[in-house]
Amino acid sequence: MTDAPDDHFHVFDTTLRDGAQREGINLTVADKLTIARHLDDFGVGFIEGGWPGANPRDTEFFRRARTEIDFKHAQLVAFGSTRRAGARAADDPQVRALLDSQAPVITLVAKSHDRHVELALRTTLEENLEMVRDTVSYLRAQGRQVFVDCEHFFDGYRGNPGYAKQVVCAAHEAGAAVVVLCDTNGGMLPAQVQAVAASVLAETGARLGIHAQDDTGCAVANTLAAVDAGATHVQCTANGYGERVGNANLFPVVAALELKYGKTVLPAGSLAEMTRISHAIAEVVNLTPSTHQPYVGVSAFAHKAGLHASAIKVDPDLYQHIDPERVGNTMRMLVSDMAGRASIELKGKELGIDIGDDRALVARVVKRVKERELAGYSYEAADASFELLLRAEAEGRARRYFRVESWRGIIETRPDGTHANEATVKLWAKGERIVATAEGNGPVNALDRALRVGLERIYPQLAGLELVDYKVRILEGRHGTESTTRVLVSTSDGGGEWSTVGVADNVIAASWEALEDAYTYGLLRAGVEPQE
Amino acid sequence: MTDAPDDHFHVFDTTLRDGAQREGINLTVADKLTIARHLDDFGVGFIEGGWPGANPRDTEFFRRARTEIDFKHAQLVAFGSTRRAGARAADDPQVRALLDSQAPVITLVAKSHDRHVELALRTTLEENLEMVRDTVSYLRAQGRQVFVDCEHFFDGYRGNPGYAKQVVCAAHEAGAAVVVLCDTNGGMLPAQVQAVAASVLAETGARLGIHAQDDTGCAVANTLAAVDAGATHVQCTANGYGERVGNANLFPVVAALELKYGKTVLPAGSLAEMTRISHAIAEVVNLTPSTHQPYVGVSAFAHKAGLHASAIKVDPDLYQHIDPERVGNTMRMLVSDMAGRASIELKGKELGIDIGDDRALVARVVKRVKERELAGYSYEAADASFELLLRAEAEGRARRYFRVESWRGIIETRPDGTHANEATVKLWAKGERIVATAEGNGPVNALDRALRVGLERIYPQLAGLELVDYKVRILEGRHGTESTTRVLVSTSDGGGEWSTVGVADNVIAASWEALEDAYTYGLLRAGVEPQE
Repeated sequence: MTDAPDDHFHVFDTTLRDGAQREGINLTVADKLTIARHLDDFGVGFIEGGWPGANPRDTEFFRRARTEIDFKHAQLVAFGSTRRAGARAADDPQVRALLDSQAPVITLVAKSHDRHVELALRTTLEENLEMVRDTVSYLRAQGRQVFVDCEHFFDGYRGNPGYAKQVVCAAHEAGAAVVVLCDTNGGMLPAQVQAVAASVLAETGARLGIHAQDDTGCAVANTLAAVDAGATHVQCTANGYGERVGNANLFPVVAALELKYGKTVLPAGSLAEMTRISHAIAEVVNLTPSTHQPYVGVSAFAHKAGLHASAIKVDPDLYQHIDPERVGNTMRMLVSDMAGRASIELKGKELGIDIGDDRALVARVVKRVKERELAGYSYEAADASFELLLRAEAEGRARRYFRVESWRGIIETRPDGTHANEATVKLWAKGERIVATAEGNGPVNALDRALRVGLERIYPQLAGLELVDYKVRILEGRHGTESTTRVLVSTSDGGGEWSTVGVADNVIAASWEALEDAYTYGLLRAGVEPQE
Repeated sequence: MTDAPDDHFHVFDTTLRDGAQREGINLTVADKLTIARHLDDFGVGFIEGGWPGANPRDTEFFRRARTEIDFKHAQLVAFGSTRRAGARAADDPQVRALLDSQAPVITLVAKSHDRHVELALRTTLEENLEMVRDTVSYLRAQGRQVFVDCEHFFDGYRGNPGYAKQVVCAAHEAGAAVVVLCDTNGGMLPAQVQAVAASVLAETGARLGIHAQDDTGCAVANTLAAVDAGATHVQCTANGYGERVGNANLFPVVAALELKYGKTVLPAGSLAEMTRISHAIAEVVNLTPSTHQPYVGVSAFAHKAGLHASAIKVDPDLYQHIDPERVGNTMRMLVSDMAGRASIELKGKELGIDIGDDRALVARVVKRVKERELAGYSYEAADASFELLLRAEAEGRARRYFRVESWRGIIETRPDGTHANEATVKLWAKGERIVATAEGNGPVNALDRALRVGLERIYPQLAGLELVDYKVRILEGRHGTESTTRVLVSTSDGGGEWSTVGVADNVIAASWEALEDAYTYGLLRAGVEPQE
């Protein structure tokens, strides 16, 4: 059940729909579900999940999201179009698909630029208004809340402000809860957005939203300019993902609203999760988080200038516009310092490992994490590997359930063009030497199977583990295939899921390392005593 | 001799001084000279080169720039500080170094936030004003033009607007040509900047400039807001480089001023060089150009949605806020499963392959792309693989320079924990059977080397190819290591770069497919006739 936020201001996220238009992003249904969970955790009010009916992936997303996500804050939104010209909304299969998605809220895209109506939609201006009225009324009658995105609104307003406003009125009068002014081509500047939004609000009385694209580098400012003019609904995407340059970035928009405007637009405590959520979503879409993103980038509170460094000690507030902890980020001096003492202590507490006042232990862990991160490890998305590292330092030795003597993988093409993958592992466990060979549909899969074949007799708990996600990132990618590789593996035992990391000069060796950690952690979770 | 631009509006670049504060940038004197030439070519009015006297590199830069660069447009600016408290400007060695740089223009940084005067500078508010007056007057008397950067101006204004304005007046009355309001901590929003700048202008009568940092994601908008309030001097950095999040990005600022405001702030024809200059400077500072940078990013005019593509053919102006050629960029159609016939036709045109009115051909290509994208291929980031597919359909057969009989890779751990990677390929080329084996630092690298070893004798053109980037994406990642893998490879022949894609049930086979395409395309580019 959704704990629907106060309706007075809408934080509306469209990462899964408009954000997915970004070049290089290609989301699976599982990716979309994961991102939706992160956005709901963060506390946005609305999550636009896609266009059900337009492609099977989005249809499946809505089907699964209904049952698989227990939304705490957000309402799910389906995106679609006004009905076709000359038909009835009630007979339009595209409109039907929106209802079938069972999303409680529907965003309808409507044309509001007269030339687009004539040239792209190829219908009359009057019929377009009727399409808006009919579709909104029909969906309202079916019990849905409706938002209307007025596409190309600002461009249309320039040439024909009267018609653009007629579209707003048509949507408003037919029962749309919010009419969203879209700068679809992204060419606007804040002063223009503010003037247009103020005029539309005064003349139509509709509740207004804003959807800004970043083509002038002003999407965040354009969003805030519309709020200054009275808009109470902002459409954004995580990390500003979106077509061309991108959309208004959710994170600086909500940070400005909360920290600069003093508005409450997120649940209490959410803002402090912002940096983590931003990085987690980047991980899912498989894009390196921008180091220079406002508020959440690792460089956002990094001070380099010697001029400043000496004075920062006197009073940090003189040199930073906000306390970085308010957005879950940290101030950094000079070189990389991802893992501060405080975060290690917090993490230990979170994991239930008492590191109390042992400052020497914390210092060792900080040092070890720094060394490892320098080599390419990333513990932000690999909690289980971090916990193993922390326990090894706290307990004086690493948990070991088995010792690997050697492993080998062979991949070759068969005459029919398919591939044969074979792996052999040689291990020691509970004093016994084990040699096991297995085949798989890839070299990592073959290694995974060989490891299980070898160990399952000794550790039957391994039979219940399943690898559920596998991600590869090539680091320092300007050296072609000679780069360093980082692999993240997610493993499940049915009751929970954990992530581990491996880094090596090649993907197979990195995968192997992540798999070793994954099984070690699985056995630890199962309460098995370490025993080589 | 400098062809000094009309003084009515200043485009002031500080890439070499403030931009160099960005984490990860470390410029040599040669780098600085190269960047200065690019900025002068672009046509900025002022290039702030550094702080002579503060470090030997900056001192040397000014010495060499005087003789080695024949500035066409820009004036060179030296940056420094007001004199020390309790001394005379004429006796201050730091002020002396500014004169010794022989730069015709000097920017002096001055404190304008009362708490910074007291806590960081540790002097009185009155002495700080005297430091401003004395230093500006002295440098003016020595024949220099002087700009004064009021550091932390907006933060200071909030607490003590009277004092902040006294600093502006002191600089103005002592002869500063421009007084620059600096949002040093970057926490401002456009409405605040505009209100403060308008008030300062009205009350002091000084010519105002703006220096914005991007900590709220609003640096471009803040710069324009100050211009709206009457500022006629904008301080920016190329690509927005700078401390923490960065500075106001020169390129969207000048593009907005020229294309949206209709101001002439650059020499005629400069704007069309903007994309090239942006990428060239990124190259010098050794940072990958941001693909999503406004105006100049390779994605800035890339269209993905099929919804748009059909209408873009009707009238591109309906779907882009400016003609990309005005900033030296180009529109690109991304081929993706959302795209239909219209985008394939546009793409063919872009690649110079005439598919004219051959609707059957277009239909075959659309069908083939959809099949392949369903299987996991992604052509939007693999132009070369798409071109090979398009040519194969247009020409009735695939270009083939070699035929692979089989390949094999072996990876195994050595006793010392390192890995041995060996690959063998069996090929046919120009009627000859070739068997080649090579080692590498990973299985893909070993295969790449074996392929080159085998083919280079027959196709010496391959020796000039280099793999420059390598990306792996696991698709449908909820099945652990049994997922499908997509690999994108970027290859360069020195003159250009192209990307290819491979998809398979494992990373090695997918890499192999992308490598095959990469070499085939490289040979096609080199004009080699296909010949098995």
